[in-house]
Amino acid sequence: MSCFNAMPKLEMTGQGEKKEYGKNNTGKTEGLKPRNVVVIGGGPGGYISAIRSAQLGNKVTLIEKAELGGTCLNVGCIPTKTLLYSAELFSEIKNSRNMGIDVSEVSINWKNLQKRKKRIVKKLVSGVKSLLAYNKVSVIKGSAKMETENSILVTKEEGEIEKIYFDDAVISTGSVPFAPLIPGIGLEGVLDSTDALNLKSLPETIVIIGGGVIGVEFASLFSSLGKKVTILEMLPFILPPIDRQISSLIARGLGKQGVSLNTECRVVKVEKTEGRLKVYFIRKGKEASVEAEKVLVAIGRQANTEDLNLKKIGIKTGKGHICVDNHMKTNIDNIYAIGDCTGKIMLAHVASEQGVVAAENISGHNVEMDYKAVPSCVYTKPEVASVGFTEEQLKESGIDYKTGIFPMGANGKAVISKETDGIVKILSDKKTEEILGAHVMAPRATDIIGEAALAIRLESTLDEIITTIHPHPTISEAFKEAALASQKRALNSIN
Amino acid sequence: MSCFNAMPKLEMTGQGEKKEYGKNNTGKTEGLKPRNVVVIGGGPGGYISAIRSAQLGNKVTLIEKAELGGTCLNVGCIPTKTLLYSAELFSEIKNSRNMGIDVSEVSINWKNLQKRKKRIVKKLVSGVKSLLAYNKVSVIKGSAKMETENSILVTKEEGEIEKIYFDDAVISTGSVPFAPLIPGIGLEGVLDSTDALNLKSLPETIVIIGGGVIGVEFASLFSSLGKKVTILEMLPFILPPIDRQISSLIARGLGKQGVSLNTECRVVKVEKTEGRLKVYFIRKGKEASVEAEKVLVAIGRQANTEDLNLKKIGIKTGKGHICVDNHMKTNIDNIYAIGDCTGKIMLAHVASEQGVVAAENISGHNVEMDYKAVPSCVYTKPEVASVGFTEEQLKESGIDYKTGIFPMGANGKAVISKETDGIVKILSDKKTEEILGAHVMAPRATDIIGEAALAIRLESTLDEIITTIHPHPTISEAFKEAALASQKRALNSIN
Repeated sequence: MSCFNAMPKLEMTGQGEKKEYGKNNTGKTEGLKPRNVVVIGGGPGGYISAIRSAQLGNKVTLIEKAELGGTCLNVGCIPTKTLLYSAELFSEIKNSRNMGIDVSEVSINWKNLQKRKKRIVKKLVSGVKSLLAYNKVSVIKGSAKMETENSILVTKEEGEIEKIYFDDAVISTGSVPFAPLIPGIGLEGVLDSTDALNLKSLPETIVIIGGGVIGVEFASLFSSLGKKVTILEMLPFILPPIDRQISSLIARGLGKQGVSLNTECRVVKVEKTEGRLKVYFIRKGKEASVEAEKVLVAIGRQANTEDLNLKKIGIKTGKGHICVDNHMKTNIDNIYAIGDCTGKIMLAHVASEQGVVAAENISGHNVEMDYKAVPSCVYTKPEVASVGFTEEQLKESGIDYKTGIFPMGANGKAVISKETDGIVKILSDKKTEEILGAHVMAPRATDIIGEAALAIRLESTLDEIITTIHPHPTISEAFKEAALASQKRALNSIN
Repeated sequence: MSCFNAMPKLEMTGQGEKKEYGKNNTGKTEGLKPRNVVVIGGGPGGYISAIRSAQLGNKVTLIEKAELGGTCLNVGCIPTKTLLYSAELFSEIKNSRNMGIDVSEVSINWKNLQKRKKRIVKKLVSGVKSLLAYNKVSVIKGSAKMETENSILVTKEEGEIEKIYFDDAVISTGSVPFAPLIPGIGLEGVLDSTDALNLKSLPETIVIIGGGVIGVEFASLFSSLGKKVTILEMLPFILPPIDRQISSLIARGLGKQGVSLNTECRVVKVEKTEGRLKVYFIRKGKEASVEAEKVLVAIGRQANTEDLNLKKIGIKTGKGHICVDNHMKTNIDNIYAIGDCTGKIMLAHVASEQGVVAAENISGHNVEMDYKAVPSCVYTKPEVASVGFTEEQLKESGIDYKTGIFPMGANGKAVISKETDGIVKILSDKKTEEILGAHVMAPRATDIIGEAALAIRLESTLDEIITTIHPHPTISEAFKEAALASQKRALNSIN
């Protein structure tokens, strides 16, 4: 059982342990009676877990207090990527003269873009609703509290309270933006990511506190739309979990786009000043400040567990997160927790995977969550994606590795789309050449990382990537070239 | 030795044979003296083969009569994709109101686009030149003729003839557009793909003879630019090598874009009529005709071997193609042939792979070309990509298979980019669940097919795809969903 971030294990397993949930388990386990399963929270962890439990023959009830789809669909991935898609197109249109296209005037129509965002969210949320109905999951709108080890109390919209008994529960209540204790953080105009997605109009200037994925994506969004962005990051670099070389390439890219990026800055207060906001910070012992119309606080998210009454039945937590083992089980045998509320890797696809793991275990299978190959993405331009170990992690663990890098300037498709600043980097075991990590800044990085995830999942070697024919002209052929470069035999770049 | 198209073999190999060229062969083979290698033709087959041969310690001379990079870089993949990129952007701009962007006027600047195309081609060609120089490959500009089994005669630009001796030769002279024997095919305004790429101005109307990859990509190009396109295809469907379900989805997509698509049409003649061209064809026994400013003939390509004097030394050919075995060897022991001139799968990445295979064999390794997992791409919008067997091939071979389909309408990223018409389809062995084919019509299909190619190369099963965490929101997660659908346990679509 752990309440800490899920760091990939460093042992190399000679033979990949086959996870049981990969097997063709479409029915319930032999001899096991259908279970009454309650899933609390309908985000990408909860709804997937509910569907999988139902597919396995259980009677499943899903409790959601707000909208199905959770943070991801409503105020996270989907709306952000919708806005980023248009922002990127906007910026491409502004530069389209280079592409042989003449455009006279272009402007962002924020109101229409907000409408589009709402339409897309609505469409996808209704999709989740249909999926749950199709899989015969009962959905109750309400707020759940633990009552006993086999019951919850659900407060519905009209105040009515319903008691629901369960054999097994899956808690998937997600996370909320973390608000630090900084004076002035409650001022009007100081936003969290949810507020920033729903702005009525675009600010001309914005200060973003925090250079993590959320901060960087919003910086990319606003600067693509021609707005002045200042990032204040406490660490000496942005995007801490990302490979350091890639994170400095992104930093350079943001700089080129006009973002003012300031590292090693500790924000101490925010003040209102003549209709604007002034953010004070300390850098290298000196106080400085920066003004803007809006301030976005993007320093992380915290587990959303406060209202669950976890203490009442003694569910163990650490720093607000629900503690779980690799079976996604809490300290109470029939109660599972998945997704952001467990404080592991806070990503939608991790939550979904954990949701499946919990569902399989509830149905009598024996499945463990494996964090060895969890891809993570940053939707900048070019995109960034990575999976497996970073160089920093490998060094720290004393693992001998080799590096192969292919520069995107030598990739035909990247040249065509004018996104040549990135690299594909592959890290592999020095001796066995097993692929240990892949780090990509390139057009479509978030999609080509799928291949790298499969490679790591299957414990592939460089040779296996090299002997896989990659289509030309594509971005993905850079992956093969990086493998070749690892063996100092690059074909389309200088070794 | 075969002169026929390289159909994937249908036997399932229990354990994938490791190809030797995947090994870390950065030096020459023990005991083997460096060889004098001549490579004839500097396209993606030839230049890669030359570089690999040089890396293996050989003295390499490359003969190229025109520009380095061959058809692919100069009049194929790269210029086509450059034009398509802008055409796609142009059509996105026209529809950008839907994306929350207001644009007043937009027009294609064909002259500037042509300039951009030339700049990109020039940049990449000069890249190939540098790579060859860096790897110490001598490049001679001239036209080669076989003289003996160990010598060629190269006619240089100034008419000077140089005799070059070699231990081993690699013929990689590529292909040229195939001109059918149709009356009127030589009329002004009847174009091949090279002409179409270099048009001084855009025609308002065009008839494309042939609904293969080249025809369909040009149809997509011209119709995205607002031009009236008519395709005449002899077969009952377009894109014959592509999975039939996908090819009918593309046909529907082209129809939506306004392309007039006519199958089962045999073109019988082209005539000039009042400054336009009239194309006569027979459909179901009846003659009909269609008029346009230009006619593009895109019915295929043929090996470019006429000037090589192959007969002189008795190199075996079939239908103009050079016959080779899976080692890429011709009937003469020290003469290899690769790429389009061998009449196998005419794709740049196949030529490159064959080039590496030839280079390894010349250096004393024992490597065979494997066509089991050759991806092929069509750069329409959405893109199309496929690898491995189609349903048609599996049925024909009597292999029991299962199908998993995920509709892109249920994929968040496809919804965001409004490209929801496609599918991801996975075909796997009914019993072992080994993945046999993947067929994708989706945004970024040409890049996500890399994962499928690796999966087939590694003889992966559905379970292995399912237990690989795919990032969200991406296109590539549809690949996992299609694998789930194959087991009738789709999570994000209706089973």
